[in-house]
Amino acid sequence: MEFITGIQKKETSEISDVLKGGFSGDIKMRGYIHTIRDMGELAFVVLRKREGLVQCVYEEGVTGFPLRELKEGMTVEVQGLLHGEERAPQGFEVRLKSIEVLTSPKEDTMLPIPISKWKMKTSLETKLNYRPISLRNIRERAIFKLQEGIGRGFRDFMFSQGFTEIRTPKLVAGNAEGGANVFKLEYFGSKAFLAQSPQFYKQTMVGVYDRVFEAAPVFRAEKHNTTRHLNEYTSLDFEMGYIDGFEDIMAMETELLRYVFHFLKEAYAKELKLLEVELPKLDSIPAVRFSEAKVLISEKYGRKIKNPYDLEPEEEVLIGKYFKEEYGSDFVFVTHYPSKKRPFYAMDDPEDHKFTLSFDLLYKGMEITTGGQRIHDYEMQVAKMMARGMNPEAFTNFLMIHKHGMPPHGGLGIGLERLTMKLLDEQNVRETTMFPRDVSRLEP
Amino acid sequence: MEFITGIQKKETSEISDVLKGGFSGDIKMRGYIHTIRDMGELAFVVLRKREGLVQCVYEEGVTGFPLRELKEGMTVEVQGLLHGEERAPQGFEVRLKSIEVLTSPKEDTMLPIPISKWKMKTSLETKLNYRPISLRNIRERAIFKLQEGIGRGFRDFMFSQGFTEIRTPKLVAGNAEGGANVFKLEYFGSKAFLAQSPQFYKQTMVGVYDRVFEAAPVFRAEKHNTTRHLNEYTSLDFEMGYIDGFEDIMAMETELLRYVFHFLKEAYAKELKLLEVELPKLDSIPAVRFSEAKVLISEKYGRKIKNPYDLEPEEEVLIGKYFKEEYGSDFVFVTHYPSKKRPFYAMDDPEDHKFTLSFDLLYKGMEITTGGQRIHDYEMQVAKMMARGMNPEAFTNFLMIHKHGMPPHGGLGIGLERLTMKLLDEQNVRETTMFPRDVSRLEP
Repeated sequence: MEFITGIQKKETSEISDVLKGGFSGDIKMRGYIHTIRDMGELAFVVLRKREGLVQCVYEEGVTGFPLRELKEGMTVEVQGLLHGEERAPQGFEVRLKSIEVLTSPKEDTMLPIPISKWKMKTSLETKLNYRPISLRNIRERAIFKLQEGIGRGFRDFMFSQGFTEIRTPKLVAGNAEGGANVFKLEYFGSKAFLAQSPQFYKQTMVGVYDRVFEAAPVFRAEKHNTTRHLNEYTSLDFEMGYIDGFEDIMAMETELLRYVFHFLKEAYAKELKLLEVELPKLDSIPAVRFSEAKVLISEKYGRKIKNPYDLEPEEEVLIGKYFKEEYGSDFVFVTHYPSKKRPFYAMDDPEDHKFTLSFDLLYKGMEITTGGQRIHDYEMQVAKMMARGMNPEAFTNFLMIHKHGMPPHGGLGIGLERLTMKLLDEQNVRETTMFPRDVSRLEP
Repeated sequence: MEFITGIQKKETSEISDVLKGGFSGDIKMRGYIHTIRDMGELAFVVLRKREGLVQCVYEEGVTGFPLRELKEGMTVEVQGLLHGEERAPQGFEVRLKSIEVLTSPKEDTMLPIPISKWKMKTSLETKLNYRPISLRNIRERAIFKLQEGIGRGFRDFMFSQGFTEIRTPKLVAGNAEGGANVFKLEYFGSKAFLAQSPQFYKQTMVGVYDRVFEAAPVFRAEKHNTTRHLNEYTSLDFEMGYIDGFEDIMAMETELLRYVFHFLKEAYAKELKLLEVELPKLDSIPAVRFSEAKVLISEKYGRKIKNPYDLEPEEEVLIGKYFKEEYGSDFVFVTHYPSKKRPFYAMDDPEDHKFTLSFDLLYKGMEITTGGQRIHDYEMQVAKMMARGMNPEAFTNFLMIHKHGMPPHGGLGIGLERLTMKLLDEQNVRETTMFPRDVSRLEP
């Protein structure tokens, strides 16, 4: 009988092993041939490994392998002498003694895009069409490494604040957010929807754990192709009970973002440098009422208020501009959104029922978060449903929590891809989405 | 202008604050009235908080609030004197001075199930029908706290081994696993599927980061209601490049499980105790070939081998029993599954093409993992597709990675709910699924 006991140390090294151990002696490494630069008697064979690029030096007569048989796209195991070299990507190079080919790409194939270039200078459309390959570019893959860091920072912070991680269903019977942009499917003779948000479930779980979070996909059947919408994206959601007001949620988000940026600085310095990202300073975030924000920008930028109950994307941009100019802040909370623009579970402002105890967070002029206090009282929730012509009986499962008692609570959702987009100053959210989905794109 | 600076310390305390600071003085706490036990002159008002239950003592004449107005299901803010009391759940109690009601449940409502009981003794069906409420039971919620711990342990271990977290689309154009159990939906005039696994995408991302993982929902249109199938579940997936064989993947999983159980012991001791869970010892896991396993159990238990190319659930149970009895192991790797039972991307055993370089992991007689080495070579992958009557042109996006070079690689998927189920010795996977989805259940 064979027994599996655990990981056995391999003879091959990773970049971090080398950086820990100094630069000397013989070494074995595996990697993908990212590029070959033939200089005549010498050639640079650059290996792509998970932690970065490794420069290997091929020398005619020294390296026991014919150079002409090496090809970009192969994966290899090389053996050679480690040598400190400050001009090399990692501060060292490997002077090749031998090379063993592990795998080869298809014969006579050219890469469709120049992935070994620093900047590929390829259209977004082309990059997306060849996504499985374009992500192999060092800068492209750094984007999603940084996105990993945002997700990690989010979770770490949530755990530190006593939140519980939940996993809520994406196949649902109801349509939480209302509206038409929901995907429908057949479900064994009945109809199911794809969750547009974990809204009902995260409120439900506040009744169980007081504070909960989830980082998971959500689905929106957006019919318009814009630079900021996706049909599937990752929503960083949290929901918390025993709040004194929706200011508690904004405070939690401010602290969260500060933590995330700090975490990136500590744990993702390499990617930040590689992508030349400047992290925002985040001492405090100004908060302005929806109606005031509209007046401020109309006064400063001479823009007429067309619809006092809605915020157009151009107005978001101007509000962002205003708070950057006047307060030096990339972020601004816009509070007290009109009731008609918020879902039925939003709590109305007791002082003016036309508005809600809610907010959006704008980052560089774009909404990256929607949040607010929710209704916890059964009668109030039923009344608001009725006032909107909804049938409370269709929401029996959701209303169960109000019926049997809920603390005052609220929460928010952050679009991970949008947050990454604005942090990186990208112009299209697809740039910061691993495999974007829109009206015309379902592949790769 | 208002500015949001971050979290302000509240006057109210959490259980851990109290346990850190000793037991004396006045305290304010918020919580949900889990139960009230009226003893005459005295009453115990038990608050449910995120970290556990807190015993509060109501004394006629001392507590400034009429007891008859208190009700289970209310959330309250109480003020009182902290007092060490070893018989209380946390080792302390609060002798109530005042109570303020924050929220109330619907009037004249009785809880549909006895959530304040230690064991609810309610049918699974009833528990699931009232899931938003039944999860408020202390044991029920501990199950999903433990599940959170498994997910955390999984991620922490993956990061420690140089894996990158990926987020792959759930709306896909193709049907990775083949077969009929896939959900279809309309997607702006074309057809989309819900991903049955992140298979294509995780292989793709090995070409980018060498080692990747994802913990996310997958969807299977299973038409049969069994105790071990769900139509939506959480798959813990990893995929790694530069392997020497599929044994590397089994080794990684062995180490992963050891880490996860150790992590639970350290960070979730409270829940383990509460649910009386005994963590498995995991020094090594026996590995047996598929065909040998069938012979072993047929010899020992006198069960006839009906189909040499398939493993029935009853056979899985017997294999589990065999390795428990003969080797004292709750786990066993069954290796070299027949090719016809494995998908087209599985690598065949070069020594016998009827079998694959693959494995399942059985835990207490049930499959919790399927994994194996994948085909990296373009020609080999195309040939296997053709031999199965598949059209390689329908897989252009997937084959892009083979075309442009992939390392030898493989990976696995672990069903989070099943792993939790077996760890807790539950008989139905729905017990360890927060909001299960099956043929007849889409709500709550």
